[in-house]
Amino acid sequence: MAESFYERLRRRVATSGPLVVGIDPSPAVARAWGVASDAAGLRTIAQTLLSACGPFAAAIKLQVAFFERLGARGYAALESVLEDARETDLLVIADAKRGDIGTSNEGYAEAWLAGDSPLVVDAVTLSPYLGVGALTPLVERAAQAGRGVFVLARTSNPEGERLQGARMPEGVTVGEDVVSQVRAWNGGPWAGAAGVVVGATVPEGVALADLGGAVLVPGVGAQGASAADARRVTASAASHAVVVSVSRALSDLGPQPRRLAAAAQHWRDELMRTLA
Amino acid sequence: MAESFYERLRRRVATSGPLVVGIDPSPAVARAWGVASDAAGLRTIAQTLLSACGPFAAAIKLQVAFFERLGARGYAALESVLEDARETDLLVIADAKRGDIGTSNEGYAEAWLAGDSPLVVDAVTLSPYLGVGALTPLVERAAQAGRGVFVLARTSNPEGERLQGARMPEGVTVGEDVVSQVRAWNGGPWAGAAGVVVGATVPEGVALADLGGAVLVPGVGAQGASAADARRVTASAASHAVVVSVSRALSDLGPQPRRLAAAAQHWRDELMRTLA
Repeated sequence: MAESFYERLRRRVATSGPLVVGIDPSPAVARAWGVASDAAGLRTIAQTLLSACGPFAAAIKLQVAFFERLGARGYAALESVLEDARETDLLVIADAKRGDIGTSNEGYAEAWLAGDSPLVVDAVTLSPYLGVGALTPLVERAAQAGRGVFVLARTSNPEGERLQGARMPEGVTVGEDVVSQVRAWNGGPWAGAAGVVVGATVPEGVALADLGGAVLVPGVGAQGASAADARRVTASAASHAVVVSVSRALSDLGPQPRRLAAAAQHWRDELMRTLA
Repeated sequence: MAESFYERLRRRVATSGPLVVGIDPSPAVARAWGVASDAAGLRTIAQTLLSACGPFAAAIKLQVAFFERLGARGYAALESVLEDARETDLLVIADAKRGDIGTSNEGYAEAWLAGDSPLVVDAVTLSPYLGVGALTPLVERAAQAGRGVFVLARTSNPEGERLQGARMPEGVTVGEDVVSQVRAWNGGPWAGAAGVVVGATVPEGVALADLGGAVLVPGVGAQGASAADARRVTASAASHAVVVSVSRALSDLGPQPRRLAAAAQHWRDELMRTLA
């Protein structure tokens, strides 16, 4: 049996800290960096962030939407960035928020979690509107190879509160129920393959004790939350189970590698201090 | 102002009936057809279904997962299928179930709804776990060009019931709330750009009166529902607002165009009779 994604991630966080470098090569970032918003521009942005900030991070997280924007050429750029990332020690997360049913989920599993796929990553984010249970082909495939999935539970945007705060008949919220179902997965044959996404901006902490999996926390930096917020919302999580993504607070600094590296080091140090 | 997606779809349904040919080129379909499960095989399956079944349909619906499975090469295959589809009168729906926040949704909008994108389609399916409100960049972009979005409301799979049946403080379910928010969009500046997905297998009908948008109904055929079920769950929808996708009940017949055409004609006739 391969080492689980959770074990891999905790080991990495213990040595490198909890920073995840978010790579969101939007047209606005391309403009600010003075590169074209085409496939070559995307590669430049992603590869610069990878090499400048990567040494201070546990993982990188690539926002797939900005590659998909360019169709097949965008995916080719993403494949080339992934090739570069695989030559580092960084874990690689595809922020794809995929989620479907049945054989379609098997298609997504083959795209992001199969060893022979040009898009294979260490973990992919999933959206559970069709039910956490519908996502089993993805977590099953992840577990087989020591890879992982992060299921959206409580997201960092204000529009998410209404749906994610709706209540099940037993009184738990939708977001809490996602965490419970992921916990159950980790208690079974897919131990350590499943994590959750919890935004650092959510008003209350989320009960993450005994999750048995990783927690990915977006929302820190440009979305307004701090390292202390990331700590607050994940206070119940296990040690070294939490990783925090910082995207625009890095990319908005522009393309100078030294400046990017200094900012990544700053975030790494602050997150290590705060989450320790 | 361009004609809205809803107007375009109703006009098309009035003349061609409500059948949507679902193109789900899974590895299992490729095996059954005796073609390789590579980009060329996907093109063969999709183009055969398009030309054999298209004449009996209002639209085709492409399951993006089976193209994404092959990375950039899969997307290149999808782009070539979309080129062929644009030369017909069929509306083209990308079943992508995308959904994110902020600029990431703008990325997805540029991918699927911008006129100069190689992936541009008439409508794309969206998943609302991050909140229907978070999807506004997509519906806004759709409305500008007479294109559309279909937001998942009540899906056809059994695992969806728990989350989609959770209740808001006012007592409505998550699925009902999605319909309400889409109705509100259609009552505003984005009239006719937004539709919903309602599975034909859901136990109870969904309140769709005055939706002001289209309803996409999966689940008929291999998933176990009938044309009568599609009618039952959408009984409150406006005339010609409902389209019904049939996927495996066609593709499972194999690659013979005449057989596929006969089956598509059968489904078209049965759906026209039942939904009229």
